[in-house]
Amino acid sequence: MRVVILAGGVGSRFWPASTAARPKQLLPLAGDLPLVRETRDRLEGLVGPERIHLLAGRELGRRLLEALPDLDPGNLLAEPAARGTGPVLAWASHEIARQDPDTVLVSLHADHVIEPADVFREQLARVAELARAHRRLFTIGAPPDRPETGYGYVRVGDPLAGEDDAFDVERFVEKPDIETAERYLADGSYLWNTGIFVWPVSLFLDEVRAHTPEIAPHLGLLDAGDAEAFFGAVEPVSVDVGVLERSRRVAVAPARFAWDDLGSWEALARTREPDRRGNVAVGRAHLADSAGCVAWAEEGSIVAWGVRDLVIVHRRGVTLVMPRDRAADLKVLLADLPAEIADAPEDGEGSGGTHG
Amino acid sequence: MRVVILAGGVGSRFWPASTAARPKQLLPLAGDLPLVRETRDRLEGLVGPERIHLLAGRELGRRLLEALPDLDPGNLLAEPAARGTGPVLAWASHEIARQDPDTVLVSLHADHVIEPADVFREQLARVAELARAHRRLFTIGAPPDRPETGYGYVRVGDPLAGEDDAFDVERFVEKPDIETAERYLADGSYLWNTGIFVWPVSLFLDEVRAHTPEIAPHLGLLDAGDAEAFFGAVEPVSVDVGVLERSRRVAVAPARFAWDDLGSWEALARTREPDRRGNVAVGRAHLADSAGCVAWAEEGSIVAWGVRDLVIVHRRGVTLVMPRDRAADLKVLLADLPAEIADAPEDGEGSGGTHG
Repeated sequence: MRVVILAGGVGSRFWPASTAARPKQLLPLAGDLPLVRETRDRLEGLVGPERIHLLAGRELGRRLLEALPDLDPGNLLAEPAARGTGPVLAWASHEIARQDPDTVLVSLHADHVIEPADVFREQLARVAELARAHRRLFTIGAPPDRPETGYGYVRVGDPLAGEDDAFDVERFVEKPDIETAERYLADGSYLWNTGIFVWPVSLFLDEVRAHTPEIAPHLGLLDAGDAEAFFGAVEPVSVDVGVLERSRRVAVAPARFAWDDLGSWEALARTREPDRRGNVAVGRAHLADSAGCVAWAEEGSIVAWGVRDLVIVHRRGVTLVMPRDRAADLKVLLADLPAEIADAPEDGEGSGGTHG
Repeated sequence: MRVVILAGGVGSRFWPASTAARPKQLLPLAGDLPLVRETRDRLEGLVGPERIHLLAGRELGRRLLEALPDLDPGNLLAEPAARGTGPVLAWASHEIARQDPDTVLVSLHADHVIEPADVFREQLARVAELARAHRRLFTIGAPPDRPETGYGYVRVGDPLAGEDDAFDVERFVEKPDIETAERYLADGSYLWNTGIFVWPVSLFLDEVRAHTPEIAPHLGLLDAGDAEAFFGAVEPVSVDVGVLERSRRVAVAPARFAWDDLGSWEALARTREPDRRGNVAVGRAHLADSAGCVAWAEEGSIVAWGVRDLVIVHRRGVTLVMPRDRAADLKVLLADLPAEIADAPEDGEGSGGTHG
């Protein structure tokens, strides 16, 4: 087994703590370590560090490697350009298949919260067996516990022959509106699409060749060793749209672990222990006579008094205050923000790559 | 005429912008200059700088003088201890009377907002004449335009003989509850007690001797030149309680200028021009889809989105967020705040004196 960690990402959802040069995978959003470090540490005992590959732009990759001291810099697959998850996974699969054509590849995001780690590792090992035995492209689906409109869903079909923990995918559905999300939750046959994928690397490349005209005609450039030209030639497409929704060999395994993609400041209230009034505070904060607030004080102190359901963030001179229920729409605010406020400088700033 | 500027004060009402070492008179709350500088500049043309005296503790006095480059350090009357406005004004009056026994003394606070300045100067000159002609201790009373519970009031009595702009004081009343304040506003015969006093210095000392047992027995120590012993011996008392409420020689002149004592962050919304949604911002602030907010960004930027009627302050690493209607009670919050948050360090910090 090998693992690729998709570690690009633009970093707007946790602004001003996250920025283009310091996206959320570099932030200690769930605990004391950056999310990418937790993601790597969660794999400990499942695969050795030499079989963990990091996918990101070169500059961001350099920062990520600083947070991952046991990974060899050679394990960074530095994407020449951002063209979505389809091309970058085709490229990574091609590179890995060259060394290890029979491996099962696990594709993960660097910025998700998953626990417990041992259950996660056991299930990945099990799904790798299933993917190899049934020759399928697997996605892990998380049972919903709320009518979430921020995630895509997978509708579960029949069980794979002889299995009770793996199913055909009846269909993938995009982020729903709230009424649809409530229906999915009540229905019971819909799972959140976690974006955690498990597949034999050779099968994935076969399916790309068969179903993905945005990518397939250009794979010869990779055979010729010209990744630069490949990224220049492909059309941007996500792996979900370009491969999974078109392939007949997809399957889903319901997650036995808790999963959150930390889509907004709101998510911090789910992944960190709140106080008895439902406040979550990271850093030095004093939330007096306040309830339901999320406070993030990266430097200095936040003092709130008599307020409810606010997100209050301070980092590098920028203070953000908004109601929690606007957190998911933060990009609407950022679109109108003057550049001199939006772009807080980072130490040794450079541009981070993105998978879109 | 001489002027004393009462410039002590503990600095909790505009926390975290104001602190003990940097009370609000040192902040540019109303414009671009510190309030104490505006207070001094407002006197330009009425009295020369050699006749303006500053009353504060020694350390705070040093900081205040930095903001007042044309005042001679000898004009600082550095009170040895904080014993309220009664003893400090008795001491200042005694010192001034020694040089200038026939002068009329104007006593002002360093942290009030007053405009227009020319009307203010004209009225002080007029009230000084009235005080000398009628031999009275004058206070200036400001006509209320709202049922303010944060100020004391003066009930206006009969006009002084032959005058239409000066009246006996029927009585002084302490800060009222809201029902009483509404009654005072409707009644029309109550004025806010601004704490701006005008009196012949000799009359003030006579009235202290006659009515203020907390101070009078110790005036001999001042005759002997021992201010230290005087401040050690007196009982703390305000000039309002210790002298004005007991004297039969008080009078009031209704202010012809606008006056605000800037009692809380809420006051900033009265003294600064709001945007069309009622937001007042000082420093770099972006208040999107927000209304009725007061933002003070002393460093960095404040970004608010979708919030109403909040006070948001950032200074030296401390961020404060509270509803506007709690601003007047800020000391309640400060009483419970951990010291490592409440006491933001100042450059070259020392303790400021206070008149109580």
